[in-house]
Amino acid sequence: MNIILLSGGSGKRLWPLSNETRSKQFLKLLKNDESQYESMVQRVYRQILEVVASPNVVIATGSSQVDAIRGQLGDKVDLVVEPERRDTFPAIMLSAAYLAFERGVPFDEPVLVLPVDPYADMGYFRLLRDMEEAVRSGFADMVLMGMTPTYPSEKYGYILPVLDISNDMNDIGMNGNDINDIGMNNDDINSRKANGKGIGKVGKFIEKPSVETARLLIERGALWNGGVFAFRLGYVMDIYARHMGYDTYQDVYEHYNEFKKTSFDYEVVEKAESVAVMPYSGTWKDMGTWNTITEEMGENYVGDVTVGEGIENTHIINELNIPIVALGTEGLIIAASPDGILVSDKAKSSYIKPYVDRLGDRPMYEELRWGEYKVLDYVSYDDGVNSLTKYLTVKAGKTISYRLHNDRDEVLTVVDGEGELLMEDSIRDVRRGDVVRVAKGQKHAIHAITDLHFIEVQIGGRLVEEDVEEFEVTTQ
Amino acid sequence: MNIILLSGGSGKRLWPLSNETRSKQFLKLLKNDESQYESMVQRVYRQILEVVASPNVVIATGSSQVDAIRGQLGDKVDLVVEPERRDTFPAIMLSAAYLAFERGVPFDEPVLVLPVDPYADMGYFRLLRDMEEAVRSGFADMVLMGMTPTYPSEKYGYILPVLDISNDMNDIGMNGNDINDIGMNNDDINSRKANGKGIGKVGKFIEKPSVETARLLIERGALWNGGVFAFRLGYVMDIYARHMGYDTYQDVYEHYNEFKKTSFDYEVVEKAESVAVMPYSGTWKDMGTWNTITEEMGENYVGDVTVGEGIENTHIINELNIPIVALGTEGLIIAASPDGILVSDKAKSSYIKPYVDRLGDRPMYEELRWGEYKVLDYVSYDDGVNSLTKYLTVKAGKTISYRLHNDRDEVLTVVDGEGELLMEDSIRDVRRGDVVRVAKGQKHAIHAITDLHFIEVQIGGRLVEEDVEEFEVTTQ
Repeated sequence: MNIILLSGGSGKRLWPLSNETRSKQFLKLLKNDESQYESMVQRVYRQILEVVASPNVVIATGSSQVDAIRGQLGDKVDLVVEPERRDTFPAIMLSAAYLAFERGVPFDEPVLVLPVDPYADMGYFRLLRDMEEAVRSGFADMVLMGMTPTYPSEKYGYILPVLDISNDMNDIGMNGNDINDIGMNNDDINSRKANGKGIGKVGKFIEKPSVETARLLIERGALWNGGVFAFRLGYVMDIYARHMGYDTYQDVYEHYNEFKKTSFDYEVVEKAESVAVMPYSGTWKDMGTWNTITEEMGENYVGDVTVGEGIENTHIINELNIPIVALGTEGLIIAASPDGILVSDKAKSSYIKPYVDRLGDRPMYEELRWGEYKVLDYVSYDDGVNSLTKYLTVKAGKTISYRLHNDRDEVLTVVDGEGELLMEDSIRDVRRGDVVRVAKGQKHAIHAITDLHFIEVQIGGRLVEEDVEEFEVTTQ
Repeated sequence: MNIILLSGGSGKRLWPLSNETRSKQFLKLLKNDESQYESMVQRVYRQILEVVASPNVVIATGSSQVDAIRGQLGDKVDLVVEPERRDTFPAIMLSAAYLAFERGVPFDEPVLVLPVDPYADMGYFRLLRDMEEAVRSGFADMVLMGMTPTYPSEKYGYILPVLDISNDMNDIGMNGNDINDIGMNNDDINSRKANGKGIGKVGKFIEKPSVETARLLIERGALWNGGVFAFRLGYVMDIYARHMGYDTYQDVYEHYNEFKKTSFDYEVVEKAESVAVMPYSGTWKDMGTWNTITEEMGENYVGDVTVGEGIENTHIINELNIPIVALGTEGLIIAASPDGILVSDKAKSSYIKPYVDRLGDRPMYEELRWGEYKVLDYVSYDDGVNSLTKYLTVKAGKTISYRLHNDRDEVLTVVDGEGELLMEDSIRDVRRGDVVRVAKGQKHAIHAITDLHFIEVQIGGRLVEEDVEEFEVTTQ
């Protein structure tokens, strides 16, 4: 099975646990059957493996998430890293080009596209196989998964199957022409009717209707668009060929900005002549707010948390290494990370974004390919010089690449583990208690032999992650 | 005016802002008339100066508070540092001995004793002069301040003046003999009656009565015991002489553990033959819980705090340098310091102590004579070795004394300021960017020329404040 997972979003709505580099899909808040914490990305990948032993998975993402994905899934998946954030149409086109040109996937093979972070039960993933089969059988060019609506939401796109089409469709903005456009015949409708939970041709897409319209749509059997698509690779590559003529992935990558900045739904799905939908009615949540996350959290309290005196319906996640004590709270989400502390009424937690947008953008915690760091302290002095203190962990066998900084000096104190330090072409061993001074402009790299932990004190004017020039290590 | 201020309490009920070394009286949460934050200690001392230009103030306290008092009040006050924590009787006896033997205060001079942290208006402090005058006039051996009760509390001691004494006093556990014991005559009673807000002789002390009894006591004019006493120094020194025969402060200090571990109320006040009380009915709070503190706080939000979406009756104090965002909370106190984070319903906040007692005892923040430090991070490794990272500030002109540590190595990185480092008898200048390694057993002292800020990384088995041996600096 060929699968394109779309991994996007800067995830400020789950601040302070999510930030620029750690989107919500990477938060390890769920528990698997073995009671180990896992993230949405890890859960989805595990669920895919339960229905297909050796899937061919490509994750389309931005460069800021590469380290987090590699850290959580390792090298088992291919990454298609968008040169810039555009929209789902360019991202899926680039991924399709990767499958076609780099992986040599035959054009008649089905491809499935889904978000990297749906919270769903196994029925969702088993349905991927049925969708693949529907594409293979030629039932439609494009097969969608339709989520059974649970309430007349204004925030979803609706998929209206061809069923019970009548004049009162005018109520929801369809007219006779629309109905003719659909191109359905009675056989299609009857086949759909004969199989309530089966596949049906799609009549129309309605994006974010009013509650009133949503109610009418649901009465007529409309489903939510969950962003899950299946199609033959060739079908999408034909569309690609109408946009671009290159036949290597590298060329497509380099001309990525020429793709129209639009959604795959709008540019491909809604223009397709033959679209079908398969309903899914199991658990499905988008885990986009603290409110939905807390409903599925493995534990009410994560980290160093003490509660007492009539606490009710409160979820607490503490990623700091100082204790949180909560007394007598009700209906709260409390979350603390090196980025900050949130205390919010659960129902109000979905309004967090504007408040968090005003805060500084510097991530105080990052999970990277080589390990992780957290910022312990940041201070500005009167003369415009600043100091920033970090705790870094480089995982055994991993390396922080050869680099220099233009605006800061660093002092590294190794507090645990063993490693090797490359400084301006000379290598030395470092271990607990060793101190390394790295001046502005001095090239350095660090390789961990065992897990290597050190405190880094930065002193300089501009203490940002972007102040780094990377170099290749040239072997003598 | 001779004043003994009693400064006690480890103050866990205001965790995480109070800890072993920073009791509640040192928290700068109040605002003075110039809109500057001040602590209870600073407020009380300022209020005393408003009624007496040059008071003779002695603060009786434990060694853990010495640095905080010196840091907040400077050298303007004398300190009587109890060799061990006992109770108010030994503390006041030691302070009286200090006044008598060290300061040479004549025995016929009045002395006032009060807590270091009452939250009261100026009437309270003006009343101290009236109490002093009452002692001087010989009206009674012991003059107390009686707080006008606002509700039938079970937690205070009650002072019942001699007034309207009748048989129904049996209701509150007094019998005919008690009444005779009081030793009042009609003149006393009439003088008291003639002056509603004046002085009256005391009939009886009732400690922590039931609500029912408290209600009866209040009906009969009883007042709360606010722990404010006035007496001639000689009166208390006579009692001292019945316990101990030494006539130097040093001797009394060295035999401090021979004083009975009991309260001054029980051992002296309740046994006095002639006790009077002067009522005070202005503002008076003991600021012992978050609930009372928040009522008087200068601002609802202190530190890096963002609030939004229908927040109500919420107080937030953030001493960390990461932001707190609060949405839709109601009736909460949120307080964050390097020691931890509290989120509590205000009414429930008085129940905090047992939960906080379970937490580790290591202070993560201390205000010291030479400046302050906060712990940024603490990590334990598999082999039993630990690392601890601190941010330290030594104030210009101050010195961290010559010392060594037995169980840890330290790496100091200066991030701002200039100072001098004494290491094993050699002195060198240190400034921003300098790194100093201090091995186990190596003697070192640091003197700040300008405010000196540095990051200290400790590595060792036992990383506690107690691991320090101090030395005198011997000049060549």
